[in-house]
Amino acid sequence: MGARVGLLLLGLLGAAGGCGYESCPATEPKMLNVHLIPHTHNDVGWLKTVDQYFYGARNDIQHAGVQYILDSVMPQLQADPTKRFVYVEVAFFYRWWQLQPEPIRQLVRELINQGRLEFANGGWCMNDEAAVHYNAVVDQLTLGLRFLQETFGACGRPRVAWHIDPFGHAREQASLFAQMGFDGFFIGRLDYQDKANRERLREMEQVWRGSSSLKPPAADLFTGVLPNGYGPPFSFCWDQFCSDNPIVDDKSDENNVAERVSSFLRVAEAQAKHYRTNHIVMTMGSDFQYENANLWYKNMDKLLQHVNAQQANGSRVHVLYSTPSCYLWALNQANLTWSLKHDDFFPYADGPHQFWTGYFTSRPSFKRYERLSNNFLQVCKQLEALAGPGIRKGPYGEGDSSVLRRAMAVAQHHDAVSGTEKQHVANDYAKRLAAGWEACQVLVSNALATISGSKENFIFCNYLNMSVCPLSEAAGQFTVILYNPLGRSVRWIVRLPVNGAQYSVMDTDGQAVLSEIIPVSNFTRQLRRDRGNARLELIFPAVAPALGYATFAVTRLAGERQLGPQEIHARPLEIHNEHVRVLFDPVTGLLQEIQNLDKGITLPVTQGFFWYNASIGNEESSQASGAYIFRPNRSEPIPMAWRVHTYLVKNRLVQEVYQNFSAWCSQVVRLYAGESHVELEWTVGPIPTDDGWGKEIISRFDTPLETDGCFYTDSNGREIQERRRNFRPTWNLSQTEPVAGNYYPVNSRIYIKNRKFQLTVLTDRSQGGTSVSDGSLELMVHRRLLYDDDRGVGEPLMEPGDFHDGLVVRGRHLVLLDTVESSPTRHRLQAQQEFMAPQLVLAPGSAAPSTQGQRFTALRQDLPHNIHLLTLAQWDANSILLRLEHQFEQGESANGSQPVTLNLLNLFSSFTITALQEMNLAANQRREDVTRLTWWLEPGAARPQPPPKLDPSRVTLEPMEIRTFLATVQHRDTGGGLAARWVER
Amino acid sequence: MGARVGLLLLGLLGAAGGCGYESCPATEPKMLNVHLIPHTHNDVGWLKTVDQYFYGARNDIQHAGVQYILDSVMPQLQADPTKRFVYVEVAFFYRWWQLQPEPIRQLVRELINQGRLEFANGGWCMNDEAAVHYNAVVDQLTLGLRFLQETFGACGRPRVAWHIDPFGHAREQASLFAQMGFDGFFIGRLDYQDKANRERLREMEQVWRGSSSLKPPAADLFTGVLPNGYGPPFSFCWDQFCSDNPIVDDKSDENNVAERVSSFLRVAEAQAKHYRTNHIVMTMGSDFQYENANLWYKNMDKLLQHVNAQQANGSRVHVLYSTPSCYLWALNQANLTWSLKHDDFFPYADGPHQFWTGYFTSRPSFKRYERLSNNFLQVCKQLEALAGPGIRKGPYGEGDSSVLRRAMAVAQHHDAVSGTEKQHVANDYAKRLAAGWEACQVLVSNALATISGSKENFIFCNYLNMSVCPLSEAAGQFTVILYNPLGRSVRWIVRLPVNGAQYSVMDTDGQAVLSEIIPVSNFTRQLRRDRGNARLELIFPAVAPALGYATFAVTRLAGERQLGPQEIHARPLEIHNEHVRVLFDPVTGLLQEIQNLDKGITLPVTQGFFWYNASIGNEESSQASGAYIFRPNRSEPIPMAWRVHTYLVKNRLVQEVYQNFSAWCSQVVRLYAGESHVELEWTVGPIPTDDGWGKEIISRFDTPLETDGCFYTDSNGREIQERRRNFRPTWNLSQTEPVAGNYYPVNSRIYIKNRKFQLTVLTDRSQGGTSVSDGSLELMVHRRLLYDDDRGVGEPLMEPGDFHDGLVVRGRHLVLLDTVESSPTRHRLQAQQEFMAPQLVLAPGSAAPSTQGQRFTALRQDLPHNIHLLTLAQWDANSILLRLEHQFEQGESANGSQPVTLNLLNLFSSFTITALQEMNLAANQRREDVTRLTWWLEPGAARPQPPPKLDPSRVTLEPMEIRTFLATVQHRDTGGGLAARWVER
Repeated sequence: MGARVGLLLLGLLGAAGGCGYESCPATEPKMLNVHLIPHTHNDVGWLKTVDQYFYGARNDIQHAGVQYILDSVMPQLQADPTKRFVYVEVAFFYRWWQLQPEPIRQLVRELINQGRLEFANGGWCMNDEAAVHYNAVVDQLTLGLRFLQETFGACGRPRVAWHIDPFGHAREQASLFAQMGFDGFFIGRLDYQDKANRERLREMEQVWRGSSSLKPPAADLFTGVLPNGYGPPFSFCWDQFCSDNPIVDDKSDENNVAERVSSFLRVAEAQAKHYRTNHIVMTMGSDFQYENANLWYKNMDKLLQHVNAQQANGSRVHVLYSTPSCYLWALNQANLTWSLKHDDFFPYADGPHQFWTGYFTSRPSFKRYERLSNNFLQVCKQLEALAGPGIRKGPYGEGDSSVLRRAMAVAQHHDAVSGTEKQHVANDYAKRLAAGWEACQVLVSNALATISGSKENFIFCNYLNMSVCPLSEAAGQFTVILYNPLGRSVRWIVRLPVNGAQYSVMDTDGQAVLSEIIPVSNFTRQLRRDRGNARLELIFPAVAPALGYATFAVTRLAGERQLGPQEIHARPLEIHNEHVRVLFDPVTGLLQEIQNLDKGITLPVTQGFFWYNASIGNEESSQASGAYIFRPNRSEPIPMAWRVHTYLVKNRLVQEVYQNFSAWCSQVVRLYAGESHVELEWTVGPIPTDDGWGKEIISRFDTPLETDGCFYTDSNGREIQERRRNFRPTWNLSQTEPVAGNYYPVNSRIYIKNRKFQLTVLTDRSQGGTSVSDGSLELMVHRRLLYDDDRGVGEPLMEPGDFHDGLVVRGRHLVLLDTVESSPTRHRLQAQQEFMAPQLVLAPGSAAPSTQGQRFTALRQDLPHNIHLLTLAQWDANSILLRLEHQFEQGESANGSQPVTLNLLNLFSSFTITALQEMNLAANQRREDVTRLTWWLEPGAARPQPPPKLDPSRVTLEPMEIRTFLATVQHRDTGGGLAARWVER
Repeated sequence: MGARVGLLLLGLLGAAGGCGYESCPATEPKMLNVHLIPHTHNDVGWLKTVDQYFYGARNDIQHAGVQYILDSVMPQLQADPTKRFVYVEVAFFYRWWQLQPEPIRQLVRELINQGRLEFANGGWCMNDEAAVHYNAVVDQLTLGLRFLQETFGACGRPRVAWHIDPFGHAREQASLFAQMGFDGFFIGRLDYQDKANRERLREMEQVWRGSSSLKPPAADLFTGVLPNGYGPPFSFCWDQFCSDNPIVDDKSDENNVAERVSSFLRVAEAQAKHYRTNHIVMTMGSDFQYENANLWYKNMDKLLQHVNAQQANGSRVHVLYSTPSCYLWALNQANLTWSLKHDDFFPYADGPHQFWTGYFTSRPSFKRYERLSNNFLQVCKQLEALAGPGIRKGPYGEGDSSVLRRAMAVAQHHDAVSGTEKQHVANDYAKRLAAGWEACQVLVSNALATISGSKENFIFCNYLNMSVCPLSEAAGQFTVILYNPLGRSVRWIVRLPVNGAQYSVMDTDGQAVLSEIIPVSNFTRQLRRDRGNARLELIFPAVAPALGYATFAVTRLAGERQLGPQEIHARPLEIHNEHVRVLFDPVTGLLQEIQNLDKGITLPVTQGFFWYNASIGNEESSQASGAYIFRPNRSEPIPMAWRVHTYLVKNRLVQEVYQNFSAWCSQVVRLYAGESHVELEWTVGPIPTDDGWGKEIISRFDTPLETDGCFYTDSNGREIQERRRNFRPTWNLSQTEPVAGNYYPVNSRIYIKNRKFQLTVLTDRSQGGTSVSDGSLELMVHRRLLYDDDRGVGEPLMEPGDFHDGLVVRGRHLVLLDTVESSPTRHRLQAQQEFMAPQLVLAPGSAAPSTQGQRFTALRQDLPHNIHLLTLAQWDANSILLRLEHQFEQGESANGSQPVTLNLLNLFSSFTITALQEMNLAANQRREDVTRLTWWLEPGAARPQPPPKLDPSRVTLEPMEIRTFLATVQHRDTGGGLAARWVER
């Protein structure tokens, strides 16, 4: 293989110019410049797994091999200094890079330094935008961009974001890209009505304001709609996958130069009518193309030659090899004034009955696993940073957060968390996450051992959602460690499967903690099948300190099981605690009313499950509901049950109403003592399809609230966007799907309100949701479909579950009823606690009471409640990556939306910050070096303000601001139990 | 494009060793050496035209682009000195070479000089073997090999013949290869029973004796059967067209090194059981593969690495990159004694009901056009050589024999003349030939003008077979020039469409020539449709001198049409001339008896047309009859007619019985005065298929001859092979198709005989033929089929003809009845005259009688009748290529089979030979330099004799010998009419 290198090294051309905009090819000011962008789109898993795509394995499923693409492109670039290429997915590039010998690496470096190999996005993947949480998006982009930065320096830093395939676009994504220093953004998919409208108005390119809180232009992002999705113009595809004729300019019956040139000129002129400058762009590539780059380049060479030769005959069209950044630069240089966009690009439809709103919910279990994995990854990274260097090797072996970092980054791909991959690929994503969990569990164990100074046999119970945990089920004595990754202390209800009738729980101070035992429900027994056999659950409330842990000793007591205060009623009418009361319909058993006892609010709320009958196509359109597309065959969903069987379980800590909707749909309506939200834990599946009907299950809340067609959803877990039924802010919508066309992504919350009161539902994963009528709110929780929806995946969404009878999904909706004024504070904090929940770690035996090391916090004090510690992670041997986030929007909360000033130097107790560098959001550029292009706007230009000089002792965060720092730190002492010294504060 | 070059030039590796066997890679003497042969198989037209294949146009039909293959392979070879590649089809390579800049040419030269880019065959194409005539095969190989020789020198000369795809193999092909200096031959297709038998007996490789006349080892050729056709072993195909998994040797769930290595070792060991040495070969490539060579090489690199690494664990398998010649060399070095094969590889079957014997006849019109084109090409080349240098530019414009040379070479491809290409490709082949005719017609005109010294407006009538010739139809006076390409004078019946009632014909000496007028038959009127409207045909016998021409002046005479001696009978009973009598059945109208009046032989011969009902598959097999495969649905053909309408036309020159078999089948049984053969001119088509039945039409001759299962067919127009019904000389045949399994290619003749008498039928093109029962002989003349036969062409053989109602085909069978002893002389001479017939050229007006230049011969004297002037062609400015052939087999004729000695210096009158170099048959190596590998044979080694020192004045030809010379010549005078000086001798 060594000899292969010679080819590349020796032929290396002398570098011409540097990278960046100054390396862009010359254009013709008085002509129409057609920027050809050679590119490949490499899904980080879809029909094949990531590895199968990288190697080109399983080409029987789809011919695609990324290794060959990169092998093939480099010599083409090397051979001709005019050629350019854009690459995107670092997950693949990283892997290829690892296998390259130094001479090829050197070639690649030079190509990058010449601006001829350009990275766009630069994330580990091209992430989904509808089902992702911003925390994971920031992480995946940081992972990829860091590799590029460290490997290629400034020339490796992408200027352009490039989401050419995701199925709709979130405003938060634009905001994040802007904060990461991107100069522009190109997208391929948007509603067909929207696109037609933009073409007509020449509004294919504008500035997108990604945040209503951040001061412009901090979240402004120049955004362009590509003309042909991300493919080449019709009949100009020269990849091996295409069958368009090559340009034949030889003496031959096949000679087609005249026809090809005139056809191209027609295409270019038609396209130019939709764009405002004398520059247009053509994406010359598509899915997994350029495996044999010669085909593309050889024919594009001829295209350039013959089209440009027509200039001698008066043609005013100039074709050139370009890149996204060079096209963007040309647009910027045009010095036009651009319109401003405030809304987002959801939902995406490519036809009147083709709304891509099914994938907001598709593969709900994986969507939950992904969210939970993000939670654990944050815990893992925090503990890695807190325990300090060297923690990767420890008493429990070699642990590594990078496995989970990468698995999580891969899971953000727009065919991963989106649920639009083949089943075996979904399995692979889950397997990768599981491997990441394993590596992180070792790391967490090492860290806990270092911090606590003890070497327990730490146990992670991964199946608590179905009441399975062998240690707690069997042990007479065990220890519960509750690690809280938030910057504020939290109260959390610990719930563990046990088999003993009585347990005592002691906290770190040796104080008894109130605990209760309740039976494991039949719902749970059905779900877990033979995975465990715990009959009971131990419940106790635990308080964990900020960025730290508390430890609890649990001891099984002798004696018979005593149900004590627990009661079971046949037909419960209500449950309540000190904050909230929930009423049930005595006839139907359904939830009927919620009362906020603190505020004296009473709202009739009927909640139940329904299913939409999935369309298999009809006279109007052959479109079936599938992994991507939601299309009910009629707008009215079918109730799961008119009456449900209910019973109540009640003790001092919890009141639970069990509702059995059907053999495959049940719910627990739960109120924990001291909590003011109502928890609805639903269990749905296996969805039967024997009747030949695909089913899409929703949980719907109906209230008398006068909502005037409006409802509200979050964007990737951060800012809230108003949604209006049958309406789009950007164009005059012709609504053709009254249900599917009103679905929006719900990443963490959805609410409806009238002038006074707000009903908010928090989700534990991304789901699709809407309000189909005033006062109503629904979330799609699960779907199982018998037909493929013809968007490429080639499989019906029939998740098989344990026994191939269909997947069972369990999840939670947290319902908050409050005033409009108070609701933001409540859902912000509750949602924060949901996606970054405490991590439970068990150990056999009982830690001696009052031992130092049983309680730990890495903060000198809790962060203010409106500040979120978004990232705390080891960066390199001596520094950590730190992101602090103001988690309130401008004006949504009188208290919460205030700016906050922190002294970073006095924040952490486990290490001392010796130097602090503020970075852009992706941490791939120093904040003071960020110089984004300026775009003139219709309402007047928003000029970026230079960042204030950083004073670590006075770091102010405005609403929705995230500030990113690289902190050089000195750990206090990594040996012998950090907690022993830092427990007190 | 200039920059692309840099890549290739700069990376050029230092040359290691030279070309030839000494450049072969090291092998392991004590191991099983697996020779991987990276190769691509590039059909010179099949599903796409040659140009479409070269450029990769119409990839919607088939993804294939030869330009990219060669683009792709070279850098791979360049980058790694261990890699090798074999290329075959010079038609493509030549074209690619023309487009390459000098640095890439330099690279290619070096790769060839290192033996790493090896040419096999080296012909313009990989020719068919069943439907070709040896004359065209010799030409097409000479064309390709000359390009290689002149471009790359000795290292470009292929050592190995490589017919990996042709559908059966002719003995004559082996003979020609041997005479061209090839050391060995590899084939991919042979009868499945034969292959199984050879595998069992380890007789996959042996020496094939290509001639029963030539003294061994002159026509001996080492011949190997490849193990997997020409593809790679199952699951080891790494081309972009394949879906076999790549070798993944990285950390990945897809890692498959252990499985791939053990699987490969199993395959190698299984294969080795069928071969005799410790070397085996694997063809790593297939149709149009290596468009992205990296896929193949990258994975083969890993295969080599990991398989050979197992040697450290005791494996005795060594894999290496190799070439056909290096594999051959290894076999030769084994010094084994090999068995000898005398028969051929026809017919080819790949299953019990899958006999590839349909293509012997498929596309009969194209097969005829190809044969006719060869005839004209020889005329064209001869005249180019005789008229001398500078003739390409002349009074009629620029003429060029190379257009027809190349078109003819392309037409030899095994999907061209074979008839197994798609319809649009067949059209393209015909178009190429037509373009070649045009260029040659200019050249011939120029030459005739030069030779004759007059500048007539030469007219070529290309549609004489349907009595269309605008000049003769309209002109009152015209001149007929009859050029005879044979080395002996011939008598030829000129037959021209006219509209006058009386004509006079005068020869060169001003003597009146007997002529007759007969009406154009309805058969012909139907055939020509509206292409012409001649009512009559003028017939006169003409004698043309050897390698020269005679001129005839034709003048229309005033007066009414006088049928004169011509009579028309309703139901003729016989026709006869001085040599032969033909009787007809008074009831059926069919031919009934033939009498050779000279010898007093009478043979009952019933001749008629029948059709086989084409199988569309049945219970035994789904195989349908198609372009490749002949499979009648039952063995008995259906008679075209029980009785035929007949009438007689008779005059002093010709007697013709017109037989109308059906609306789409007719025949003229014709006797010309002075000729001793019976001519059967049949017209078949459009074959109706409205009844849903595909039809395969035969002409069958039934006689009482006791033939004992034997019949005889020629091999590519040269040596005769005995065929026996339901028998193969090589193995114990299990016959499964009583008709199709007995079909053999008839390129020029087929005969049956008893001890005394022989009935010979000469064909005007290649056809399939057999003898299904003793005394019977049949030829398939046309076929039209409704189903594709699943061998890739993907079209039923439904040749559309003029109005898409089906192609009409007209052809001639010449029937000879004679003694066994006399027959060879008759069929040799008659067949020679058929494939190299005189060329008719017309000119308006009448040449003045007795003008010098009206008669010309380039020979000082006629060649002996057993000597054929196979080739006379301009080679370069000062030399010509000359091939003399002894056209009799050893012992077949008391007189004809005698050796002949010629004085070459005294042969030609138009030029003087100043130097003479004898060459091998392909003219790419001097005869004295030919050193073929020696193979030990079971009956004892045949050691090549050094060629006798050439004495140009005494050149002896033994039976079936072809001797090839490059003669440096001095033309006597190219200006002002050569004929003027050389007419007398």
